Amino acid sequence: MKAAIVGGGVIGGGWAARFLLNGWDVAVFDPDPEAERKIAAVLSNARAALPLLSDTGLPAEGRLTFPATLAEAVTGADYIQESVSERLDLKHRVLAEIQKANPTAPIGSSTSGFKPSELQQGALNPATIFVAHPFNPVYLLPLAEIVPSPASSPDFIAQVQETLRGIGMFPLHIRKEIDAHIGDRLLEALWREALWLVHDGIATTEEIDEVIRMSFGLRWAQMGLFETYRIAGGEPGMKHFMAQFGPALAWPWTKLMDVPPFDDALVDLIAGQSDAQSGHHSIRELERIRDGNLVAFLRALKDRDWGAGRVFNDHDRRLAAAAPAAPVQQNPMVTARMVVLPSWIDYNGHMTESRYLFAGSQTIDAFLAKIGAGLDYVAAGKSYYTAESHIRHLDEAKAGEGLSGSVQVLAADDKRLHVWISLTRDRDGVEVATIEQMLLHVAMAEGRTCPADPQVLATLSPIAAAHADLPRPEHAGRHVGQRKPIPA
Amino acid sequence: MKAAIVGGGVIGGGWAARFLLNGWDVAVFDPDPEAERKIAAVLSNARAALPLLSDTGLPAEGRLTFPATLAEAVTGADYIQESVSERLDLKHRVLAEIQKANPTAPIGSSTSGFKPSELQQGALNPATIFVAHPFNPVYLLPLAEIVPSPASSPDFIAQVQETLRGIGMFPLHIRKEIDAHIGDRLLEALWREALWLVHDGIATTEEIDEVIRMSFGLRWAQMGLFETYRIAGGEPGMKHFMAQFGPALAWPWTKLMDVPPFDDALVDLIAGQSDAQSGHHSIRELERIRDGNLVAFLRALKDRDWGAGRVFNDHDRRLAAAAPAAPVQQNPMVTARMVVLPSWIDYNGHMTESRYLFAGSQTIDAFLAKIGAGLDYVAAGKSYYTAESHIRHLDEAKAGEGLSGSVQVLAADDKRLHVWISLTRDRDGVEVATIEQMLLHVAMAEGRTCPADPQVLATLSPIAAAHADLPRPEHAGRHVGQRKPIPA
Repeated sequence: MKAAIVGGGVIGGGWAARFLLNGWDVAVFDPDPEAERKIAAVLSNARAALPLLSDTGLPAEGRLTFPATLAEAVTGADYIQESVSERLDLKHRVLAEIQKANPTAPIGSSTSGFKPSELQQGALNPATIFVAHPFNPVYLLPLAEIVPSPASSPDFIAQVQETLRGIGMFPLHIRKEIDAHIGDRLLEALWREALWLVHDGIATTEEIDEVIRMSFGLRWAQMGLFETYRIAGGEPGMKHFMAQFGPALAWPWTKLMDVPPFDDALVDLIAGQSDAQSGHHSIRELERIRDGNLVAFLRALKDRDWGAGRVFNDHDRRLAAAAPAAPVQQNPMVTARMVVLPSWIDYNGHMTESRYLFAGSQTIDAFLAKIGAGLDYVAAGKSYYTAESHIRHLDEAKAGEGLSGSVQVLAADDKRLHVWISLTRDRDGVEVATIEQMLLHVAMAEGRTCPADPQVLATLSPIAAAHADLPRPEHAGRHVGQRKPIPA
Repeated sequence: MKAAIVGGGVIGGGWAARFLLNGWDVAVFDPDPEAERKIAAVLSNARAALPLLSDTGLPAEGRLTFPATLAEAVTGADYIQESVSERLDLKHRVLAEIQKANPTAPIGSSTSGFKPSELQQGALNPATIFVAHPFNPVYLLPLAEIVPSPASSPDFIAQVQETLRGIGMFPLHIRKEIDAHIGDRLLEALWREALWLVHDGIATTEEIDEVIRMSFGLRWAQMGLFETYRIAGGEPGMKHFMAQFGPALAWPWTKLMDVPPFDDALVDLIAGQSDAQSGHHSIRELERIRDGNLVAFLRALKDRDWGAGRVFNDHDRRLAAAAPAAPVQQNPMVTARMVVLPSWIDYNGHMTESRYLFAGSQTIDAFLAKIGAGLDYVAAGKSYYTAESHIRHLDEAKAGEGLSGSVQVLAADDKRLHVWISLTRDRDGVEVATIEQMLLHVAMAEGRTCPADPQVLATLSPIAAAHADLPRPEHAGRHVGQRKPIPA
């Protein structure tokens, strides 16, 4: 698949990064001689951040080209995104040129303010032009506001949404076109009020930023305005909240209704305060700080399958479904396939010690699920607890590498399960660790061992019997510091 | 120290929780017969969330009382917070009654809209009345807008800020009083625009919430409005951003300037949409989801010492400085004190298997730092790598419990370090795990063993010599599945 990115600033670069890192070939057109450098900077940020949010591994990166002409860039493209400057005459000229070379591909516009019907004026094929308005940084924030005019068919817009879901976005279909769509309407309202507060000397830019990030900013990263207020209304709910706070709308907080004088004095005041607040960081540093924070939030939301985190989980599921299933080895049994995540890495850049045991736990948990002693069994009050483990750290693993975990049953009776876990690196099959473990079957409420349920033993026994024929691992039974393996 | 909380709704309950969990005694007065139940609900949420954000452990909880009269509640209080309904005549009456019983204590008002000079009208002692406006959930969000009138002295306000920092808040001094202070000004502007969008059928409450939490909500949880836009301006900075986006202020997005008709039809529309969006969760469930998300964000920001996370780290440092230093045991050497964090807990509610090894790593890392082989040593290219570990899982640990890690050196030469780590639960001294480890000293670039630097060995040797006199741990040298310890 090929995407064409027309206009290569921070926004165009973010779109290019999203498509590239999801396996699309990308052709960028921008007459600015600096475009290639600017795109490279955005791409470098994106490559440092987006893969950290994938638990399945992203597809191989596509090919990035910078054709000399607009026509060359858009020819053969399956999707085109326009992100040129916010002037309607310029957008009309660019859209006409695009459609001369490629009259049928979907053309999303990154416009913050224009309506799709305005963009479509005089177009060769108005039906394929729509607004796809993203938010900076485009490679991390999932939202794209998809605003069609009535000229575009519902099927066409549904297909566009599917394309953008394919690059991990959250394409929200806005059903009525208005100036500035939805997000920028909300932002503009708040921005205007903030300018007044600075203008009137009530607060500095830094104080306003602290107010936001120490309070409602944290709320809005995971619930929006209405869901947050629904909670504030308490048990009586939204009507109660409205009754309590609605009347304040009519109070004379008049600055809300007015436009502050946007003159040099205001610009200088704000730019000066912003320098005092953030000038000790370069823009590049601020980008890295921001992206690190966003990645951490998004990982937290992924763990909880909530909000923007669910978008990333859905993307993982889509990628996993598209990937060919790896064949599973039976003896010893490969039960887990894992990707080394950034949070598994220590200050040396390698997988941290305790994560070897974590990968072993994942492997055993999957084995237990296979023999019918998974989460449901635990919920019913019984579980296998690990009594002791011996780990041999044999080789390293880096972020993004695939690991496979296999289990060999060394011995099993109705209460005990003695296993040998081997963790291997997928790229070269090298064994990075072995873990020998003794697990005891426990009645959790009583906190003591008891025999496993018959159906668990019925599944476990034939596996144990089959594994009894495998050679015993050379290092089984080893203690720490032992010079040679114990003779069999 | 004693705090009096006057008005016991969701906001008053949040204040009560903050003071109580930071070791203050709290007296709540609210004539509502439901007040005790409501406060208990908020407290239960707070107890489930706030301790998860402390790495030092919070002080012992204070005593909560519900005196029968306002006078009894405020008598002897060192700090008083008023959170009654948003009616000026009521607030005047309550403030007068408070000052009759306690004319000198600071009285913060949770008012969203009133100016401190309005609250002070007719007061016995105007100078001790000020606005301390928090954000829901008060027990998690750090911001308190502190707005004094000119009647209050700067020293007095500085003292109030110090008190609120002592309960983990971020008290921002707002230097000019205006209606609704700062946060609610910004919220009101956005809220008004959101009402228009629903009123005009552009978007539903759910769509507006998605727009916020999929885009700028994530940005604002860690940087505010101006710092975010500074980045958007790129290298040319804030002036460039202003030049680009300032003029749009004058565009005719007129809805911003107007008040939507706040009638039953609008209330019904919004309440209905909100039911459709969130009605499948109870308010209680939404609170838990929200708090879980906020805790995860705040932990991520703590790890990065950024934004609201830094407030929690500062609070930890303050608590650690105030706590008497625990005596450090030398033989074996206690090197690490840890708190079991929520992310260490598995589906059984206990510390997950791999975190025992993690706690062991923390213990050994601190030991290595003590012998001069810490992060600087690693940065210079040498390190101790763990070759193998044997773990005995002996007992359980729950979130919030303190653990201590001690090290006994079993043997050491210039390349090898054989240690015995014991992890004990602070509350009862029970050993929850032992870890026997062999570490090898490695030249990292070459990836092979080499002798440790002389100054490291010079520090290590006397410790090893001292530990040689300790009894050898009974289970040292044990292998997995061994029935009895190896005879010494």
